[in-house]
Amino acid sequence: MMTFLPQGDQTQMTTTSPPQTIPPLQTVTTTDAIHRLLNPRRVAVVGASDDIVRIRGRVMHLLLKRGFDGTVFPVTPSRAEVQGIKAWARIGDIPGGVDLALIAVPASAVLGVLEDCAAAGVGAAVVYSSGFAEEGGAMAEVQARIATLCQNSGLRVIGPNAMGFYNILSKTAATFSPAAEIAPVDLPAPARGIAVVAQSGGLGFALYNRGVRRKLPFTHVVATGNEVDLEALDFADHLLDDPAVTQIMMFIEGVKNGHKLVPVAEKAARLGKPLIVAKVGRSAAAQRAAASHTASLTGSDAAYDAIFGRYGVIRADDQDEMIDIAAAFSVCPGGRASLPRGRRVAIVTSSGGSGSWMADAIEQAGLAVPLLSDALQARIRPVIPSYGATQNPVDITAQGLDAFDQVIEALASSPEADAVVIVAPLGSIGAKLPFDADALRHAIARAGKPVVFYSYTPPSPEMTALMAEVGTAIFTTLTGCAAALAHLVRYGEAMDRLASAGSVAIPAMDAIADRAAQALDTLPRDGLLTEFQAKRLLAAAGIPVTEERLAGSAAEAVAAARALGGPMALKLMSPDLPHKTDAGAVLLNVQGDQAITAAYDKLSGPVAATLPDARIDGVLVQKMAQAGIEMIAGVMVDPDFGPLVMIGSGGIFVEILRDVAVSPAPVDHAEARRMIGRLKAAALLAGARGRPAADVEALADLLVRLSHLAVAAAGRVQEIDINPIFVHTHGLIAVDALARMEDTTGRERAIGPMVATAAAGE
Amino acid sequence: MMTFLPQGDQTQMTTTSPPQTIPPLQTVTTTDAIHRLLNPRRVAVVGASDDIVRIRGRVMHLLLKRGFDGTVFPVTPSRAEVQGIKAWARIGDIPGGVDLALIAVPASAVLGVLEDCAAAGVGAAVVYSSGFAEEGGAMAEVQARIATLCQNSGLRVIGPNAMGFYNILSKTAATFSPAAEIAPVDLPAPARGIAVVAQSGGLGFALYNRGVRRKLPFTHVVATGNEVDLEALDFADHLLDDPAVTQIMMFIEGVKNGHKLVPVAEKAARLGKPLIVAKVGRSAAAQRAAASHTASLTGSDAAYDAIFGRYGVIRADDQDEMIDIAAAFSVCPGGRASLPRGRRVAIVTSSGGSGSWMADAIEQAGLAVPLLSDALQARIRPVIPSYGATQNPVDITAQGLDAFDQVIEALASSPEADAVVIVAPLGSIGAKLPFDADALRHAIARAGKPVVFYSYTPPSPEMTALMAEVGTAIFTTLTGCAAALAHLVRYGEAMDRLASAGSVAIPAMDAIADRAAQALDTLPRDGLLTEFQAKRLLAAAGIPVTEERLAGSAAEAVAAARALGGPMALKLMSPDLPHKTDAGAVLLNVQGDQAITAAYDKLSGPVAATLPDARIDGVLVQKMAQAGIEMIAGVMVDPDFGPLVMIGSGGIFVEILRDVAVSPAPVDHAEARRMIGRLKAAALLAGARGRPAADVEALADLLVRLSHLAVAAAGRVQEIDINPIFVHTHGLIAVDALARMEDTTGRERAIGPMVATAAAGE
Repeated sequence: MMTFLPQGDQTQMTTTSPPQTIPPLQTVTTTDAIHRLLNPRRVAVVGASDDIVRIRGRVMHLLLKRGFDGTVFPVTPSRAEVQGIKAWARIGDIPGGVDLALIAVPASAVLGVLEDCAAAGVGAAVVYSSGFAEEGGAMAEVQARIATLCQNSGLRVIGPNAMGFYNILSKTAATFSPAAEIAPVDLPAPARGIAVVAQSGGLGFALYNRGVRRKLPFTHVVATGNEVDLEALDFADHLLDDPAVTQIMMFIEGVKNGHKLVPVAEKAARLGKPLIVAKVGRSAAAQRAAASHTASLTGSDAAYDAIFGRYGVIRADDQDEMIDIAAAFSVCPGGRASLPRGRRVAIVTSSGGSGSWMADAIEQAGLAVPLLSDALQARIRPVIPSYGATQNPVDITAQGLDAFDQVIEALASSPEADAVVIVAPLGSIGAKLPFDADALRHAIARAGKPVVFYSYTPPSPEMTALMAEVGTAIFTTLTGCAAALAHLVRYGEAMDRLASAGSVAIPAMDAIADRAAQALDTLPRDGLLTEFQAKRLLAAAGIPVTEERLAGSAAEAVAAARALGGPMALKLMSPDLPHKTDAGAVLLNVQGDQAITAAYDKLSGPVAATLPDARIDGVLVQKMAQAGIEMIAGVMVDPDFGPLVMIGSGGIFVEILRDVAVSPAPVDHAEARRMIGRLKAAALLAGARGRPAADVEALADLLVRLSHLAVAAAGRVQEIDINPIFVHTHGLIAVDALARMEDTTGRERAIGPMVATAAAGE
Repeated sequence: MMTFLPQGDQTQMTTTSPPQTIPPLQTVTTTDAIHRLLNPRRVAVVGASDDIVRIRGRVMHLLLKRGFDGTVFPVTPSRAEVQGIKAWARIGDIPGGVDLALIAVPASAVLGVLEDCAAAGVGAAVVYSSGFAEEGGAMAEVQARIATLCQNSGLRVIGPNAMGFYNILSKTAATFSPAAEIAPVDLPAPARGIAVVAQSGGLGFALYNRGVRRKLPFTHVVATGNEVDLEALDFADHLLDDPAVTQIMMFIEGVKNGHKLVPVAEKAARLGKPLIVAKVGRSAAAQRAAASHTASLTGSDAAYDAIFGRYGVIRADDQDEMIDIAAAFSVCPGGRASLPRGRRVAIVTSSGGSGSWMADAIEQAGLAVPLLSDALQARIRPVIPSYGATQNPVDITAQGLDAFDQVIEALASSPEADAVVIVAPLGSIGAKLPFDADALRHAIARAGKPVVFYSYTPPSPEMTALMAEVGTAIFTTLTGCAAALAHLVRYGEAMDRLASAGSVAIPAMDAIADRAAQALDTLPRDGLLTEFQAKRLLAAAGIPVTEERLAGSAAEAVAAARALGGPMALKLMSPDLPHKTDAGAVLLNVQGDQAITAAYDKLSGPVAATLPDARIDGVLVQKMAQAGIEMIAGVMVDPDFGPLVMIGSGGIFVEILRDVAVSPAPVDHAEARRMIGRLKAAALLAGARGRPAADVEALADLLVRLSHLAVAAAGRVQEIDINPIFVHTHGLIAVDALARMEDTTGRERAIGPMVATAAAGE
């Protein structure tokens, strides 16, 4: 049974080192350090052993076995030679320097070894040993000392508790993962391929393992463990710049420095390299407690989704889903031009039932299986049996297998299909392929769109390899195939969107910062704002709010009502009363001097008396708003990602349907329209059943302004909740609002880069 | 390349037989015939050959290879011996009778061979040859003649164009599927297991192939092809009665006789044998066109879903999903007692990240991962490392693998968990299992709940086999594992529901039939009913409708308004005007003699004038209903399954949310409540955000009455649409209604058995 260095494995290592001179910190960039780490020429294996079942021997064994062509230096005090190679007692004894030290010694000895490494000018180290932060107590402190050593010395460390990495391109297997053993030794490294980055080596290498079985090309697998120094996002950032890396699969458990995510996501989008991410935590019970709906509907998981959505990052729920998505991207080597241009999928099958089942799956995934044109059907009809079908799915029947080549060519070259799925039992189709491999290769190369296979019988490894070589991929589940194609479509749409971003001018948005700053000067620095105060902030951003005045006496209330005209809502204003209606502090449809006076007196008298601890600002006299479609909008500030804006259905439906869309702030009008378009309420706003359409443009404009306000007020406003907004046929009005202030401008926060990047992207 | 008998395979067979005496039809039941077919002692292979690559040789080869221990008779005119066994020129030459003939001759020769079989008293035949109905033309006619031969002679036939069957229990491989070759020949047949029934042999045997790789026990695979005689549902019906069959996987493309489905589903539910069904056609563009919402929201796919929902049939969207579900049921061998009693899942993991990811998947699937009690956590804490976690997921850490046994035992035996999922990298855990197999076996046997594994590394076949033998199953996808557990939970709930069905008395429902019959006597036999007529039908069933009178003059309208009191709605009544509001034929809130007169005159004058072709029945004078929560309900009659009832959200939300639930009629109050509970509107009806709850009981009662009306009026009423229903705090009222009549009582329809069975089940 293999573990991360068993407790009993107490090799006598030199754990106490003599005082050493740590060389001064050199200013090597992280990406340069990672490049040297992933492509070392001189590698020391500290704790190396002949026992290749144990981690200590296995790391060196795999390094040699996978064909590392640099120099290996076993380091062990007890042996002259390990696995046939001269051993050294200490790392400092190795002449000529070391790029990378692989450390598999008991946890208690690790710090000493790393100090040796730092003193010897070693570039980087991988620490496989476990029992540090995860152990707690004194060992957690040792981990903290390792962190300090890294900061002071410039030594870069993967781990501890890491499974290490495997650079397939440079044939450097710096890991003990059994997955590094599976591919044939003489297999040439792929020219381009997929990098895997994960904290958990188990999951990271399992993805590699599954992918290799699917004949996907991999370039790197990196497992970062406890991340005392280098983090998964550092590697992702570095690997995106590697021209050999076409896509990155990431497994994210917890992100120490969430602000690193946005630049990585932005870079990936800019380079057109898909980031396929599994992010644990959808079910996390710990949700930020907050007074308003905004917070309760957008936890930090929603923040991740918002970031992912903005930058086209693909979130997956399962390992096989990740592999399926990567397989789909692997057949689109030409970037945007090779991705589907639309949602239309053509299906060709030798089995009617399977073809229909695939059509079900394709439509379920949000894509379309449209009727082919008469012309295209006429082109197909002569080459398939008379009892086949040409409409789509095209059924060539079990007797018409010879027609596959021509039908695939016809569909692949037709502008009527944005992707082609071939349904065939590749696992039982016999020794003779019913395709001409070269014809298929050429059809696919010319197609400029994905052409993929679904096989309901398990294909042989040889068939899988042949198909990968031809430029396609075989899926073995309907749902996986359909979902992966849908991801291709959405990724292409995200690319188009990001490419066109910045072209939309947002007039007058610069002024929001100035006006927001002026408004903020007049508002409390902490705690809840009253509705009246929150609306001043919204008004500063140009958001239409109800006409209203704050009255400090019945006479002022009457004067306000006369000035505003029509029926009034009167509301008791207190920063201590976020839920006014529940407290009976709202009176609606009040009209006439006498009624206004009575309402004022009731709110400021008996109602206020029920709230002995509430600070009372006065009574708000508000012109009743014309009813409309109820929506809500809001801002919340994520500690990692900065301000997010939310839009959703209002009224009772917000709680029943949880119909909300979230995006990082700021958003432009196009993004605001897309957010509204994602809502179930979109159909309602568009004018369901012949009702007049609501003013979606006004709602989008509100969202744009709110998002710019959120950016402008970052560090002061933590939360804004506008509920309800009444959207009319022309225009809209924010009827009630809440805001929570907390001055964090003096604190070190992670929101800076996020805001800057997002703003630059507009 | 193997196909269903290549066109060129023109073996010289005797295709013209001398006139024969067909023996008279014996009254052998279908199930007896299927028993003999699946368990033959004497099998003839017509067209047998030595070439085992071709179907003609392969069938005999597989039959012998899989260990058939009866007698095999090759039939071929050209050879004395085939595959080392004496051959016969004609099937009639074989002395002593034949139970089953396997026929692999060119299509043109099949009818002659079948006539020979019938004349020789052969029990049944499998026809592998293709090119019949699917070929069209003259060959479709041949297929029709085969059908006639079956009906007249009593010969039972699988096929043509069938892949045949494999009875693993009796070692009878009557198929050419390569999948029948994969299991080791000396593997003992399972005592109990899964049967697969499909029209498509490709899909049916592919399911077997995938399942065998997962070490699932299979008893039968049957592929019925063109179903000239025996259908997939006949085999399902038969196999359910086989005590060795524990569950059935079905692949349904098209059902010839849909009415056979309900008895099969009902029998499966009664016996507690899961039916796991893939039904193609969710995306079928062809939807029944209808005037009302009911029809547009419930196509025939919805009818299948309704039947499936009623009887606990499990619908799956993918082959692997079917296999995962079957694997989950395979670890619940004790029927209801071994299924989860609730939705609480305990997770134990050696990898924190994977455990959390599984928790995400479990909650996503609608199950819960609850906090364990302090007592249970206290029991677990001492056996895992100090830095592990006990809350749930229980993280024993990579260093604590030895704790698996004790933690699994603690969770499996605790009443706090309804199922246990163990997350472990079984594929890379090394040669030594971190479990004591016997301890695990006993813990699982005692648990009385599912205990399953998820491995993020691919497990070895040996590990998979060991775990199956121990009584558990290994899943390799998170989503597949979670979804399968959710199906176990829902199946258990369905079992409980069906067990308690019939205990709910429905008072006065008998009277509905009488009163409906009386009402029907007064109503048109065809076409649309007016609102007034439709409401008489609803009223006959005891459904509260608006108070209203049909007026033929202004004076009658005034008199009606006075009698009813309060504001009125006036509506022009015509069977040719289903959409009254669109035509301006509805006037609301009319009060006072003068206004009533004016409204009457307007409707019967200018409004009626815009509808020159409409037959006018008069003007409906209707008391305005008190507003409430808007719902809709309806009836549609499916040609296969008979009447279905529907309930849904009303107003504009019905079209935006498609928030409907459908069930076969009749329903009892418990089923009606469940249907309402499935709606998104359920939260609204329950009183969202402190609003008063609506009268759900009244709504359930309406649905029960509507469903009994649908049954009573079967053959007359094809469609009823009640829209809207206003549901109040106490009671409700049906405000508008439509009905479509079509007298089909004289026609042969398939609805009889359905109604009878469903009614008997109440």
